Amino acid sequence: MMQTPLLVGSMMEHAEKFFSKKEVISQTHDTLHRLTYKEVGHRTRRLMSALARLGIEKGDKVGTLAWNHHRHLEIYFAAPGMGAVLHTINIRLSPEHIIYIINHAEDEILFIDEDILPLIEKIHPHLTTVKAYVIMSDKSTLPDTTLQPLYNYEQLLTDGDPAYPFRHDLDENDPAGMCYTSATTGKPKGVVYSHRGIVLHSLALGLADGGAISESDTAMPVVPQFHVNAWGLPFACTWFGSTQVMPGPRFTPQRLAAFIERFRVTITAGVPTIWLGLLQELEKGNYDTSSLRSVLCGGSAAPLGLIRAFEKKYNIPFYHAYGATETTPLVTISRLKSYQQDLSEDEKLQERSRQGILVPGLEMKVIGSDGEVEWNDEEMGELLVRGPWIADAYYRDERSELAFIDGWFHTGDVVTVDKEGTMKIVDRTKDLIKSGGEWISSVDLENALMAHEAVFEASVVAIPDPEWQERPIACVVLKEGYEGQVTKDDFIQFLEPQFAKYWLPDDVLFLDAIPKTSVGKFLKRQLREQVKAHYQIKSE
Amino acid sequence: MMQTPLLVGSMMEHAEKFFSKKEVISQTHDTLHRLTYKEVGHRTRRLMSALARLGIEKGDKVGTLAWNHHRHLEIYFAAPGMGAVLHTINIRLSPEHIIYIINHAEDEILFIDEDILPLIEKIHPHLTTVKAYVIMSDKSTLPDTTLQPLYNYEQLLTDGDPAYPFRHDLDENDPAGMCYTSATTGKPKGVVYSHRGIVLHSLALGLADGGAISESDTAMPVVPQFHVNAWGLPFACTWFGSTQVMPGPRFTPQRLAAFIERFRVTITAGVPTIWLGLLQELEKGNYDTSSLRSVLCGGSAAPLGLIRAFEKKYNIPFYHAYGATETTPLVTISRLKSYQQDLSEDEKLQERSRQGILVPGLEMKVIGSDGEVEWNDEEMGELLVRGPWIADAYYRDERSELAFIDGWFHTGDVVTVDKEGTMKIVDRTKDLIKSGGEWISSVDLENALMAHEAVFEASVVAIPDPEWQERPIACVVLKEGYEGQVTKDDFIQFLEPQFAKYWLPDDVLFLDAIPKTSVGKFLKRQLREQVKAHYQIKSE
Repeated sequence: MMQTPLLVGSMMEHAEKFFSKKEVISQTHDTLHRLTYKEVGHRTRRLMSALARLGIEKGDKVGTLAWNHHRHLEIYFAAPGMGAVLHTINIRLSPEHIIYIINHAEDEILFIDEDILPLIEKIHPHLTTVKAYVIMSDKSTLPDTTLQPLYNYEQLLTDGDPAYPFRHDLDENDPAGMCYTSATTGKPKGVVYSHRGIVLHSLALGLADGGAISESDTAMPVVPQFHVNAWGLPFACTWFGSTQVMPGPRFTPQRLAAFIERFRVTITAGVPTIWLGLLQELEKGNYDTSSLRSVLCGGSAAPLGLIRAFEKKYNIPFYHAYGATETTPLVTISRLKSYQQDLSEDEKLQERSRQGILVPGLEMKVIGSDGEVEWNDEEMGELLVRGPWIADAYYRDERSELAFIDGWFHTGDVVTVDKEGTMKIVDRTKDLIKSGGEWISSVDLENALMAHEAVFEASVVAIPDPEWQERPIACVVLKEGYEGQVTKDDFIQFLEPQFAKYWLPDDVLFLDAIPKTSVGKFLKRQLREQVKAHYQIKSE
Repeated sequence: MMQTPLLVGSMMEHAEKFFSKKEVISQTHDTLHRLTYKEVGHRTRRLMSALARLGIEKGDKVGTLAWNHHRHLEIYFAAPGMGAVLHTINIRLSPEHIIYIINHAEDEILFIDEDILPLIEKIHPHLTTVKAYVIMSDKSTLPDTTLQPLYNYEQLLTDGDPAYPFRHDLDENDPAGMCYTSATTGKPKGVVYSHRGIVLHSLALGLADGGAISESDTAMPVVPQFHVNAWGLPFACTWFGSTQVMPGPRFTPQRLAAFIERFRVTITAGVPTIWLGLLQELEKGNYDTSSLRSVLCGGSAAPLGLIRAFEKKYNIPFYHAYGATETTPLVTISRLKSYQQDLSEDEKLQERSRQGILVPGLEMKVIGSDGEVEWNDEEMGELLVRGPWIADAYYRDERSELAFIDGWFHTGDVVTVDKEGTMKIVDRTKDLIKSGGEWISSVDLENALMAHEAVFEASVVAIPDPEWQERPIACVVLKEGYEGQVTKDDFIQFLEPQFAKYWLPDDVLFLDAIPKTSVGKFLKRQLREQVKAHYQIKSE
């Protein structure tokens, strides 16, 4: 067989040739843009020529600090398309972490959205490798700024070459992208994506039983482009010719709902927090969401009540998926098997609330205290994964040896697997509550609490216990109007029929909000400190 | 990213783990077998251990002479799974060609269906490399035969190890399979399939806009397993957990129709001849074909009337695909784009009769007499393709340099491409009719003739002409009951409104049958000789 490499640039070439009329619809600060793939392709080529003129060479890192929009999409293909490396930077991280990331990755150039300019102005004296800045804006004049040299994105494109070629002489194992995990402790850890990894992952997203991304889709990734390549959707949707809708900077649930209706969105993707917000918006407004064939949910486990609301109330199919920055990210997706269609509605919902079965192309195993656990839906263990779109190390980071062992990525997630091979996240290894020699899943308790009608959000953490080692404490944020209407005992009674007695939380605390990470996950480290402070327990 | 290779064996491991309950339904000479993937997996492992015990080593060729059934499927995974090479042999070829193929490939062992035994007994004195024979049968006793040594497949499995491991230490570029093209002239040419090629091709078959092969499918490949791996379906269907229905030896249209109804087949695949036969059967019987979501048709261009009958009369979606032995085989597939759904029924049918757009992962170009032709649906040129599941040479064959040039496979097919990138086969380079400096597509004329209600099959070939260089002659096989009811002039009048005057055939000959190759394609070389003999034109 021919030794043709799997390359990111080839995906855009395919879109230019076969989907030239299909559109990318992009909301920027000022404008709603509509561009065809033919135009996006030309603009990507112009950008490649501009990067080359600015001295960007093979292997150089191209940093982005940007929301979801067409310009960000163009850099997704232009950087790897000319042999450089797309480095998407999480704009929600602390300035210290952003400085660390840019210097650690050795970014040569930064592409910046205009509203992120003030942040970069503040930190730029600390940046050691950046040689040029590019501002992405609909305005033709450059802002007054201390950043030097600063280029205007659209001017670079105007001066560029619309016929500049995508490189075909790259190795498919060459780096194409980078993303740092938003670690909850310590410095962020970098993951490098190869061309091969991104292309194979895109194929998985296109599988009928994967993401089923199709030309007939109108896809709106809500998950940020700075977070694991928006789960790879911009790559897959371009390759397969889907219409793309990019909600742009600082979108609201109202904008998401309006875009779904206006552009007849068929598939959208994001974390549970986004869908909780959208659900509230749908309950307020009268939106037509009938075009939606799939809401992809990942990042954290979605509560059963959320899935039920989407599926039963709004008739929107809701797909749980699982992955991580280290896994490009798709690892499992929840789909009923054909013979599971005969289950009762409730059993189906239970099954759908699991994280699903492994995507073809990867391998998994689950390791408990005595080696591989049985797939019986009971035994818990840490999930290990392996495959061509799984990282084999953190970028220049000694912590690699803690997560990448004997050829497997140790996810840090505790799971059970049932006889169908369907995986369920039980907890993070570090969040699992160890009580009296048994394990208690904080996630199971949270999901049960979130199914209570009064609960907006709930999180469960351990506090040290002299007798039992650890005991669970539930933290609950009530929905509007329920304040003072429900008590601790109401919740304990609600949980009692569902769990063994030793699982029941020792206390229920009512909070105004659960602290979250920059990508919307519960920040349990901080919550644990809050809870311990509440009980006047000293931290270790 | 991890350097885990793409391997054929891993696809069966995935099925064992995640689709253990799903079934392979297999018709052999004597029995209808139903096995789960768990059982097929164990049997495949037993077979790998048997191959190892028989001395088969990495890179050795394992020949098969067999119909479509579960044992053939097991060899599909066992041979590459333990590092050997699956070599499927076309049982419809001449004994001379079969001898050539087995010796040229240097097969070490042959797996033979019982009804093919007489053929092998005849030729085995000429086989220079085969060290052992295995007969696949439901009978427990060995037949009386001169083949030595001869093993019984089921006995080998009984003695084998159900836990024998698939090899993970192979290079993805190692050979996994082989198939020889049924050349119409000269000796057959061998194509070697790599693990990488087969795995990537399987992903293409699983794409929502590719074959969309899914766990929810019940797939019945009618295309023989000895012909380009049954278009790769046994690999993809196993990996993605589809139920497989294998129609077994010497099936009839009646059996195909009955199996579709009985097993609720959702997807089936084969050449136009098969579908013409099935159509006649459907018109006779009262079959429930409502489960079918897709009939994949390739090998030759399907006449418009055939597509219309399936889609309009039986409401069965009919997908034209294109490929070759050298291309694993999927290259293009015909699917309407979302915005083409607004076309009239007739325009849609026209579009669907084209061979479709390129599958993601490949590249194509079309070369006319002056370099790349424009994609305007007018200019004709030869189709060139490139990609990781396209062969880069014929196996140890000097003719490689005629077809594999500058990194592209020259298909020998003349095509046009429209502005949508949708490709249409116009002819084989060697069958194109050159008349008065213009090109006439024999395939276009054939398709038009086959849309006539009286026509069962039609083929058009050139005869030499002193004035025009070549002129077309139409050869028609009438449907039963139409003999003597239609004349040459009827057909010419029928064609007149559809074509330029110089395209109209100089004559229409009525034949009892069109000569065909062993895989059901028109054998134009032989037909041309017949036609020339009819006109008493001397062959060159």
